[in-house]
Amino acid sequence: MTIEEAKNVLAGCRGQIDEIDRQLVRLINDRVRVVERIGAVKKEVAMPVYEPKREEEVYRNIETSNEGPLPNDAARRIFERIIDEMRTLQRTRMGAK
Amino acid sequence: MTIEEAKNVLAGCRGQIDEIDRQLVRLINDRVRVVERIGAVKKEVAMPVYEPKREEEVYRNIETSNEGPLPNDAARRIFERIIDEMRTLQRTRMGAK
Repeated sequence: MTIEEAKNVLAGCRGQIDEIDRQLVRLINDRVRVVERIGAVKKEVAMPVYEPKREEEVYRNIETSNEGPLPNDAARRIFERIIDEMRTLQRTRMGAK
Repeated sequence: MTIEEAKNVLAGCRGQIDEIDRQLVRLINDRVRVVERIGAVKKEVAMPVYEPKREEEVYRNIETSNEGPLPNDAARRIFERIIDEMRTLQRTRMGAK
């Protein structure tokens, strides 16, 4: 492969990454909206916000659906970050505990 | 809203979260595959693996496409984790620098 050919392949790959990232951003925002709905419902009926059992269910779903090449521990760390950011956001936006 | 009604709404929301998470996992794995292709091409033509300018482009794409409610700084932290995990994985799988 020449440098020129490589540059073309890389440009195509980068277009794919950008498209994937836009979809990820959209989905993460969809997730925020559902989490906010959950927070609002829980607040209305005074249910506890944090449910460790449900959290484990979330990670189990992720690990079960993960077909790789991303290892499960890496997937888990990414979702820990996603969930943590959502928790922070919910705290700021809704004054929830 | 009664507790019973709340539980039904929550069950629906959780189904949505699980579906979103499965899509996220799939997309993140798609991203890994493209990143690996990039790594392989760069290795073949001996191009540098790390390109800070491209990395900034990635974050710009994320922030430009982010319509919220997730704030840009939270989106950035999530993608820092995603990118960091991919870098680690690439290092392990390809012996790349």
